[in-house]
Amino acid sequence: MKKKRIIVIGGSAAGPKAASRARRLDENAEIIIIQKAPDLSMASCGYPYYVGGFFDDRNQLLASQSGIVRDSIYFWNTKRIKALVNTEVTKIDRQNKSVDYKNLLTGERGSLPYDKLVIATGATPFKPPVPGIDLKGVTTLQSMADADFLRNISDEGEVKQAVVIGGGLIGIETCEALVLSDIEVTLVELMPQLLPFLDKDMSLNVEKYLKTKANVILENGVSEFIGENGKLKAVKLQDGTTIPCEIAVVATGVRPNTALAKEAGLKIGEYRAIEVNSYMQTSDPDIYAIGDCIEVPHLISGKKVYAPLGDLANLQGRVAGDNVIKGNVAQFPGTIQSGICKVFDYGVGAAGLSEQNAARHGFDNIETVVNASPDKPGFMGAKLLITKLIVDKTTNRILGAQVLGPGDVSKQVTTWAMAIQAKMTVMDMLNLDLPYAPPYSLAIDHSIATAHIMQNKLNGLFNGISAEQLREKLDNHTPLLLLDVRNQDEFEMINLGLGEKHIPLEQLRDRMEELPEDKNAEIIAWCKISLRGYEAARALMANGYKNVKVLEGGINAWPW
Amino acid sequence: MKKKRIIVIGGSAAGPKAASRARRLDENAEIIIIQKAPDLSMASCGYPYYVGGFFDDRNQLLASQSGIVRDSIYFWNTKRIKALVNTEVTKIDRQNKSVDYKNLLTGERGSLPYDKLVIATGATPFKPPVPGIDLKGVTTLQSMADADFLRNISDEGEVKQAVVIGGGLIGIETCEALVLSDIEVTLVELMPQLLPFLDKDMSLNVEKYLKTKANVILENGVSEFIGENGKLKAVKLQDGTTIPCEIAVVATGVRPNTALAKEAGLKIGEYRAIEVNSYMQTSDPDIYAIGDCIEVPHLISGKKVYAPLGDLANLQGRVAGDNVIKGNVAQFPGTIQSGICKVFDYGVGAAGLSEQNAARHGFDNIETVVNASPDKPGFMGAKLLITKLIVDKTTNRILGAQVLGPGDVSKQVTTWAMAIQAKMTVMDMLNLDLPYAPPYSLAIDHSIATAHIMQNKLNGLFNGISAEQLREKLDNHTPLLLLDVRNQDEFEMINLGLGEKHIPLEQLRDRMEELPEDKNAEIIAWCKISLRGYEAARALMANGYKNVKVLEGGINAWPW
Repeated sequence: MKKKRIIVIGGSAAGPKAASRARRLDENAEIIIIQKAPDLSMASCGYPYYVGGFFDDRNQLLASQSGIVRDSIYFWNTKRIKALVNTEVTKIDRQNKSVDYKNLLTGERGSLPYDKLVIATGATPFKPPVPGIDLKGVTTLQSMADADFLRNISDEGEVKQAVVIGGGLIGIETCEALVLSDIEVTLVELMPQLLPFLDKDMSLNVEKYLKTKANVILENGVSEFIGENGKLKAVKLQDGTTIPCEIAVVATGVRPNTALAKEAGLKIGEYRAIEVNSYMQTSDPDIYAIGDCIEVPHLISGKKVYAPLGDLANLQGRVAGDNVIKGNVAQFPGTIQSGICKVFDYGVGAAGLSEQNAARHGFDNIETVVNASPDKPGFMGAKLLITKLIVDKTTNRILGAQVLGPGDVSKQVTTWAMAIQAKMTVMDMLNLDLPYAPPYSLAIDHSIATAHIMQNKLNGLFNGISAEQLREKLDNHTPLLLLDVRNQDEFEMINLGLGEKHIPLEQLRDRMEELPEDKNAEIIAWCKISLRGYEAARALMANGYKNVKVLEGGINAWPW
Repeated sequence: MKKKRIIVIGGSAAGPKAASRARRLDENAEIIIIQKAPDLSMASCGYPYYVGGFFDDRNQLLASQSGIVRDSIYFWNTKRIKALVNTEVTKIDRQNKSVDYKNLLTGERGSLPYDKLVIATGATPFKPPVPGIDLKGVTTLQSMADADFLRNISDEGEVKQAVVIGGGLIGIETCEALVLSDIEVTLVELMPQLLPFLDKDMSLNVEKYLKTKANVILENGVSEFIGENGKLKAVKLQDGTTIPCEIAVVATGVRPNTALAKEAGLKIGEYRAIEVNSYMQTSDPDIYAIGDCIEVPHLISGKKVYAPLGDLANLQGRVAGDNVIKGNVAQFPGTIQSGICKVFDYGVGAAGLSEQNAARHGFDNIETVVNASPDKPGFMGAKLLITKLIVDKTTNRILGAQVLGPGDVSKQVTTWAMAIQAKMTVMDMLNLDLPYAPPYSLAIDHSIATAHIMQNKLNGLFNGISAEQLREKLDNHTPLLLLDVRNQDEFEMINLGLGEKHIPLEQLRDRMEELPEDKNAEIIAWCKISLRGYEAARALMANGYKNVKVLEGGINAWPW
């Protein structure tokens, strides 16, 4: 029997996974990876941590779990996979089922036939077309070469000022890495908020925290990189501001690498990435595509999205590996765009749809709630978690959750990611049996408590108002009675200073006469996390007040 | 309208939750908690951490999140709940819908009518009926008084030796607390393993680790507490061993407090706890019962189980609070017996059924797999996780998972708890979209990788053997070729010393002639985590070997 030949274009994450899986399913297939870069299986999500000095051995970015650098020799010896590095595929010939390639070092060209082809060409950072973009000192953080360049700067310690362009995941991770390298960083973002996977109100809390570490400029873009003798000296912004700096890192998103696929006539999707079915098969049944060059369905709405994430690339690689060997036996169902980002001592993550996104995906009857409360008991070193939950009011289905803070964000976002993929409703979350012990969580876990508050809101027990909504009312000079019900010590230590009345909850029922006679007066109550605010509201409502709201997340989630 | 009167018997976890929820639903109801102990709302799961010195302020065990001790005054002022402490309910009179009570300090007696009654009488530690059980120095760790007693011992620093009787959750937490108090601890367990919610093979890994911190004696019980002048001097075991010690902590499980309910003629279930329906209603429709005194359905099998866990008590309290006010509107669906335990630097947890338990719950066609691999990349400070997954082969449904190790166990067990409650199958886990970034997980999360291995096993790609099964084969002198495929450095650093042959994976395909000619020879392959072991097995199988197994979890999960 003729050996099957599998060619994989791309050797970063998805490609090697597909090749390795294929090998485990078929010891006899001929499997070839063609990789443009000099390295293979780079842990590219780890670049910011290498730059930031979390570890020093560059090889750890390239090594297997047992510490062996995954170079061409490794792939051949342990997996019998031939990996051609520094080699670019220049053309896919679908008619003859072959690829043309060129060695970028030697210029040598060749052609290889395939039985099945896997395209894992990844993505390229977008660079804004402004003057000076090619100056020395202007970089991205997407390749080993970029990581080496920035780590070297960190080690040398001579650069004092940097600008990071872009307030998404990579921008913020890069910002942290440079700050940890003792560089003064200014982060510039074109949009009015950081981290576009968050809703604005949640992003404000990240902004407040990040500003304790770096300069943050929003709603402003780069108009020019200013140089001297070919070296970057400053970044000029669209509003004319000039920020002196020796390096600038551009992190304004990535674009799928689709040139080869387009030229071969493969179908391209609405996000300008390669279109695939659930088997990861392109419009040519012998060609599969995976990783950052494709678009995939969103699991909640079914609509296609572009989700260039390392974990999905690996899963897609395994699916493609199955299918090129076994025929279409495995399916990748899609994404809920789960993500998480370390922001110094905060975790910031999300799963599913944001409030902004829900509308775009066709959900127009939603409810949201914010819960800002600890991850475990105070006596075990509680840390704050702020969660925003988004549900479809029509079905009570959980559509999305955003979580941030110094607490155990990773577990919370994972919990919501599971709930969303299992199509759970708020009701399904109310009585979950999750593992509990004081070192790990509260008796009622933060995620369950969030569902409880949402249920209270859906049932009309809890009439919430978000920090942003309250701010708007204040800006509009809406007549309000603001009511802080914390105790005396807490109030003296910190208060919002909005002209609020202070009546501790334990005195409230005896001091009702101090409240407006008009039972229709709008009252906004809060405490630290707004459990007592909620209890106060219940007491006020029972006393006839008809327009009582609770500030969601209380003092904890107030982002200003 | 006459005010509704709710009486709650018990003021620890479930009771105050029910009372507080009821208040938030009805400002006008009269709500009374009758509590035998002097304290209210004690964080009893925190006692071991107070004893172990994780914090010093005793009030933190009694305080709300804002730091106020939840005494009778607190309950009245903030919630208008009357809490009678040091007060024991002596009788429930169902006919007249009233309870008789007695103040334990003053001897004063009284009677109170109720509209709805909530029984939250909790549980009492079981004390083995052996001589000397009442000696000074023999204690449990279940009440504030117990916690005070042991913390005082820790602070004084005079006790040098202690025995902990019982190797369950509380026994192990107490063991840690005492070791951290610089006391030499011997832990004695009657069963042949620690932590009965784990399968034996998993418990062996805990045992191996715990033995680095304390003495561990299994399959042995106490026959006598030996005293001198009324004070404990030693513990005598059933095999005659005598262990000198100044204190002994009995942690051999708890028994539901059902005397009041029984006397009132309420129905008692098969586990000798109070029987309730999903509304938490007893056989008397005006009486609800919650917390450690009831039994609840297991969500996988529907069979009743006794699950005295603090998180469930709180959830049940909320459900009862809803139902006593609103009529039966809320339901507590049941438990999957999720649990987690800190064992020094290890987390140890489980959700769903163990392999042992699966049979008892009616599942006789199961598959298991062990995955021992890191929680995140090596460059971010990877820590080991060992997971055992149990699935129903008939439906591929996930029945249970056990996770232990220094890695992020809490997130893993939570992930499995969600999967089990969502009735997910192995297939549903294969391509989960979970939040990924290097500080938090591997690109393919440990839980997903575990599902991948299970799929490989179910599909016959991966023929696994557990450490226990291999040990049995070795004990039976079964002819085996043992094959370690790690690299030279790894092998020299540590190896199992079972007479294994060492051929690094990268040399295996070129050294096939060193292997037995007989293609039916039984070969057991492994590496550190058994990914390379798996790759080796695939290569051997492709070369005609018909009886190749992979040691599950590799060196990482070898418990001896």
